[in-house]
Amino acid sequence: MDKFADKKITPRAEDYSQWYLDVIDAAELAEHSPVKGCMVIKPYGYAIWEAIQKTLDEKFKESGVENAYFPLLIPERLLKREEAHVEGFAPEVAMVTHAGGKKLDEPLVVRPTSETIIYEVFSNWIHSYRDLPLLINQWANVVRWELRTRLFLRTTEFLWQEGHTVHATNEEADARARQMQEVYREFAENYMAIPVIPGVKSDSEKFAGAAQTYTLEPMMQDGKALQFATSHNLGQNFAKVFNVKFLDENNTEQFGWQTSWGLSTRSIGGLIMTHSDDKGLVMPPRIASIQAIITTIAPNPEAATVVTAAANELSVALKTVGIKTRVDSREIRPGEKFFAWEKKGVPVRVEIGPKDVAAGTCVLVRRDTGDKKSVALVDAPTEISALLVEIQSNLFNRALEYQKEKTKSVNTWEEFVAAIEAGNFVLAHWDRDAATEALIKEETGATIRCIPFSQPEESGVCIKTGKPSSKRVLFAKSY
Amino acid sequence: MDKFADKKITPRAEDYSQWYLDVIDAAELAEHSPVKGCMVIKPYGYAIWEAIQKTLDEKFKESGVENAYFPLLIPERLLKREEAHVEGFAPEVAMVTHAGGKKLDEPLVVRPTSETIIYEVFSNWIHSYRDLPLLINQWANVVRWELRTRLFLRTTEFLWQEGHTVHATNEEADARARQMQEVYREFAENYMAIPVIPGVKSDSEKFAGAAQTYTLEPMMQDGKALQFATSHNLGQNFAKVFNVKFLDENNTEQFGWQTSWGLSTRSIGGLIMTHSDDKGLVMPPRIASIQAIITTIAPNPEAATVVTAAANELSVALKTVGIKTRVDSREIRPGEKFFAWEKKGVPVRVEIGPKDVAAGTCVLVRRDTGDKKSVALVDAPTEISALLVEIQSNLFNRALEYQKEKTKSVNTWEEFVAAIEAGNFVLAHWDRDAATEALIKEETGATIRCIPFSQPEESGVCIKTGKPSSKRVLFAKSY
Repeated sequence: MDKFADKKITPRAEDYSQWYLDVIDAAELAEHSPVKGCMVIKPYGYAIWEAIQKTLDEKFKESGVENAYFPLLIPERLLKREEAHVEGFAPEVAMVTHAGGKKLDEPLVVRPTSETIIYEVFSNWIHSYRDLPLLINQWANVVRWELRTRLFLRTTEFLWQEGHTVHATNEEADARARQMQEVYREFAENYMAIPVIPGVKSDSEKFAGAAQTYTLEPMMQDGKALQFATSHNLGQNFAKVFNVKFLDENNTEQFGWQTSWGLSTRSIGGLIMTHSDDKGLVMPPRIASIQAIITTIAPNPEAATVVTAAANELSVALKTVGIKTRVDSREIRPGEKFFAWEKKGVPVRVEIGPKDVAAGTCVLVRRDTGDKKSVALVDAPTEISALLVEIQSNLFNRALEYQKEKTKSVNTWEEFVAAIEAGNFVLAHWDRDAATEALIKEETGATIRCIPFSQPEESGVCIKTGKPSSKRVLFAKSY
Repeated sequence: MDKFADKKITPRAEDYSQWYLDVIDAAELAEHSPVKGCMVIKPYGYAIWEAIQKTLDEKFKESGVENAYFPLLIPERLLKREEAHVEGFAPEVAMVTHAGGKKLDEPLVVRPTSETIIYEVFSNWIHSYRDLPLLINQWANVVRWELRTRLFLRTTEFLWQEGHTVHATNEEADARARQMQEVYREFAENYMAIPVIPGVKSDSEKFAGAAQTYTLEPMMQDGKALQFATSHNLGQNFAKVFNVKFLDENNTEQFGWQTSWGLSTRSIGGLIMTHSDDKGLVMPPRIASIQAIITTIAPNPEAATVVTAAANELSVALKTVGIKTRVDSREIRPGEKFFAWEKKGVPVRVEIGPKDVAAGTCVLVRRDTGDKKSVALVDAPTEISALLVEIQSNLFNRALEYQKEKTKSVNTWEEFVAAIEAGNFVLAHWDRDAATEALIKEETGATIRCIPFSQPEESGVCIKTGKPSSKRVLFAKSY
């Protein structure tokens, strides 16, 4: 009996939230843990995180960044030093108050993010302009006490990377913050096949303690936005509080200019909600841990032997050209087998039965379109390689098409309310006043996702107040 | 000015403990953090951990193990379930009592190890013998509240991997525990160049909750042992407590047989204390993040241009053959440059000056022996590749030689005390009584590091009690 057979997936049209959880369950990506709000990332889900780590880590290193590791526990006094920062994070921290059987003199905070502890350390590492730029990243777990949690999207503990850099000038720090946003964009679009809208956050939406937050906002299938990754120009806010200082070329003491930037397991939630369908997960080939699953079809044990041998041979041929593959030769009904791998979103399914072996062929089935074709076994490596490229680009284009279709430019409040209501991304004029932003959020649930780089300067009036505006910003409901 | 120039290293003969800390400081591997007992792993030290992770992770996966991730925080009630386990870990746990601004109903323990939370989850994953073996690993941070800490060797928080498996039979579980010990041994000896003595722990020294602990014990330069990695056959101890059950082929309910196995950042301490010398760190080539450092020597700016061009060209040639290299073309005194990389233990230093460029040569200097030779630039990639292999094997052989020299077989209590006193590994007969073991520890500070696989059966008498014994065991002082 196939252990996946019993996992039913609620259709998206019926209940999108339940569909999301069903896909995660059916594909065995993650599950709730015995600890409230924390998840267990199962092997098939963790393999996605490993692919993300591997790809991003290489890109970070190519850009001169080195990895390091800083403590999980932060003395409360450090967290309290930067005012805006503590205000943003204090309500959601977990505190270690006892250890080694005793009450601690000072409570320790389980890191919700590591600016404070890292910059306290950086202040000892940096003396002169020759120590700059300092470009550090860490892969770590963080804890934020969330009341309403949701697998991948919002969990009490999550995995992420957090980059932290120090520069001699604001220009250089800002360039680095934008450079990392571009690294994330390229990763989102070319690997995860997720089209994103790059821009900057409004003041109300930026990171607690940042001067500027650069963001990437993709559209989920229900029209909501998800913050994919952010990159912050921190200015000298933290440097002044943590004494991150250096002697410049004229031997004058200066505060450093800093950035921080991060991407988390949350992005896996974005991946699911961009591509998957009512049959289950859909994986973009460049992130898939299994790109082609070879499934055997055998009506009897003799046939099984022949078919499995052919499948194993094909597996070797596929691996030789760099295709990540696996053979499923379990003796269960072919339909159950197909169903199982469909739910796991493997980009290409290869079917081999006795007739195929006799004819020297196999059948390739695309997960994204369901298209089937029979190809010669000898051509399979080339055919599948080409198919993976095509699927990767099809997934991206399909998501981009959807995003464009559901992005509306509106000029009146009525249009705005209707467009948000209907689950769109909405480009509209705004008077740059945080009070207006708050009012819009209150009345419609929509927030400013970003001020997109792609929007041209144009004169208009704020949809809410009628005050002048020079650029449309992106509004949407969000995760 | 060279930022490394001021780091002096205490000679080993003068103060081995201080030497250890000085090497870490001079090589910029790690430092104490603002949080008591926790360390900051600096980029050059973290690169060692990354090399360890990459190598072991591949070996684990080749053996069928998959990675997953489980929560950092464990409800106290789970930790308390296995009696021997809680007794071993309760005194050193850190507790989260408050979160999100409120006191928690139940305190959460920051994981000191994850058997309890993982097996609680496993009990839901396993139903039938077809779900077995279950082979899972996680890369994670753990916290154990240590009173006396020491960089890498014993820190409140450390990084490690912990493997957890479930099997249908005790034989299979035991085979897996031994298989992983063998993976660690091969890694220790062939990558870290650390000769280890494989064996099993005595009952007093085994893991809290294990039926059998397999260990690898290398000798540090001061004659003390360090536990390199352990692999535990957990029997059904945890399975019975956490209900890790399955239906066997006869549809009868059975408890699973389990193993767990781990290696931590502690192994980096072992690496340092196996190979390094009074000049600083010595890195085995197969773990080194920089295998060959190309240092330029230039008396004037014109020479610098020519020499740096040659160095960059060589760097490309070395990378082509897979050598990890970097060019140091800083305009500082050559001696300072050499000194800096010597302290960082880079296996091969390449020196290129104007005369070398004119002659089409460069000088290769071995970190392990100090030997120098001039080679043609065109031959450098081949020469360095060969040298790296030679250095790797020399480091291993040197350490093995030392270990053999300082391992004594003794037959009387007087010999035993003297041999331990002199900082040796001591093979001696023991009566298999935990009380005797405790007495020996109390009187000499030596513990049973392991019952080595390599020791033959032979009749003898216990050095302490005179009672009969059939095998010598390994005693030593340890970290």
